[in-house]
Amino acid sequence: MEQTNQVKGQVVLYGRHAVFSALKNPKRQILRLLILKENEAEIKKTFPRIDYQIAQKKDIEKLVGANAVHQGFALVTKPLSSMFLEDLIDEMRDVQKCHVLILDQVTDPQNVGAIIRSAAAFNTAAIIVQDKNAPLESGAMAKASAGTIEFVPIVRVTNLARAIETLKKAGFWIVGMDGYAKQKIDQVDKNAKLAVIMGSEGSGMRRLVEESCDIKVRLPMDEKVESLNVSVAAGIVLYEVSKNL
Amino acid sequence: MEQTNQVKGQVVLYGRHAVFSALKNPKRQILRLLILKENEAEIKKTFPRIDYQIAQKKDIEKLVGANAVHQGFALVTKPLSSMFLEDLIDEMRDVQKCHVLILDQVTDPQNVGAIIRSAAAFNTAAIIVQDKNAPLESGAMAKASAGTIEFVPIVRVTNLARAIETLKKAGFWIVGMDGYAKQKIDQVDKNAKLAVIMGSEGSGMRRLVEESCDIKVRLPMDEKVESLNVSVAAGIVLYEVSKNL
Repeated sequence: MEQTNQVKGQVVLYGRHAVFSALKNPKRQILRLLILKENEAEIKKTFPRIDYQIAQKKDIEKLVGANAVHQGFALVTKPLSSMFLEDLIDEMRDVQKCHVLILDQVTDPQNVGAIIRSAAAFNTAAIIVQDKNAPLESGAMAKASAGTIEFVPIVRVTNLARAIETLKKAGFWIVGMDGYAKQKIDQVDKNAKLAVIMGSEGSGMRRLVEESCDIKVRLPMDEKVESLNVSVAAGIVLYEVSKNL
Repeated sequence: MEQTNQVKGQVVLYGRHAVFSALKNPKRQILRLLILKENEAEIKKTFPRIDYQIAQKKDIEKLVGANAVHQGFALVTKPLSSMFLEDLIDEMRDVQKCHVLILDQVTDPQNVGAIIRSAAAFNTAAIIVQDKNAPLESGAMAKASAGTIEFVPIVRVTNLARAIETLKKAGFWIVGMDGYAKQKIDQVDKNAKLAVIMGSEGSGMRRLVEESCDIKVRLPMDEKVESLNVSVAAGIVLYEVSKNL
């Protein structure tokens, strides 16, 4: 695992894409930007008003870990604020068609980052996760998201089953992804507000979550394959449901 | 990066899924199976006729690297034979509809592994790569494929542009994935033999390859997102073209 000097309430972003995207985000609270000398001209040109420190490779590695592909950029920031479920529902009140993604126990930051990237691509309104089972914002997650973590709202809830009930009352149709379901994803009526639930690769959705679904569907696939990588499966699902937008 | 004792002409597979899948593959030439004592009962029950050695954790780590999630299984094998393009074409001669995937400079073994997994799920007939730009079979790739590397034929060619010409002559329709294309993937006529080309995340297809396409299409996505993770994009594309099967 990465050995980094993590400080509570701080995130260290790294890599050109993730750092530049954060610097362009007015909501991102920046604490410190460290760059290698070779990146100075680029930073001066792209972000003329942003303060930076020239750092040595070893200083950046101390912050982000020796294996991280940092490309000479490290940005110490506050984590982004998460969105309240109520605010999401308010925002979607007058919308006829939209979709949100609920992740039940997807714990790998790389997978969550790749899923955020797909969510940004396919106009997913928000990603909802259970606070205690979801990874916190991190440099690895931001990197895997290719910087799109800056514009996909994340809603962190204490109780996922209760959040699903709230979504139902607000008119969302709850679609559970389940490899054993009879119906396929493309049979879902996309002319609606959809909340799609994806569980973990190994064990799927938890029972309480599964029982709250209005419909369960699967991705059609060859029976010799048990499941797809969770970020690939999420990408396909978001692609398919975004066809209604 | 992983520090392992690699021997030429040998691959060390690890992790329960990848190892079990390889042990079930009659074409896989097995050299040595190492397991932790705790896995002995499981191996005896599942593969009663296969020889194994009980190993220490450090022996397995020496083979697969300290960071690899090996779950107490390491299998030293010969790499799988790749398929000849001519044999693939022969096999598909009387088939009306099928698809193959051509990867142009996708170099990350994890991504290739995840793509193989999607190819297995969506009945892709084969994956074609340029020998010198594609990663060799490895434990990391097999693990990312969740063992599906055992049943997706890989065709390694010297010259990709020439292979594309051969496919064209054999009646394949060449579909290039290109973020700037006007048409979308779901506009491709799927009632055909398709060869879909995906380039690298950063730079896409090389020009010579791009010029050989019969049609170029894109995944529809929000303009604020430059691209998807290449394994996610490939998953969506294979899902979409498998709708013809």
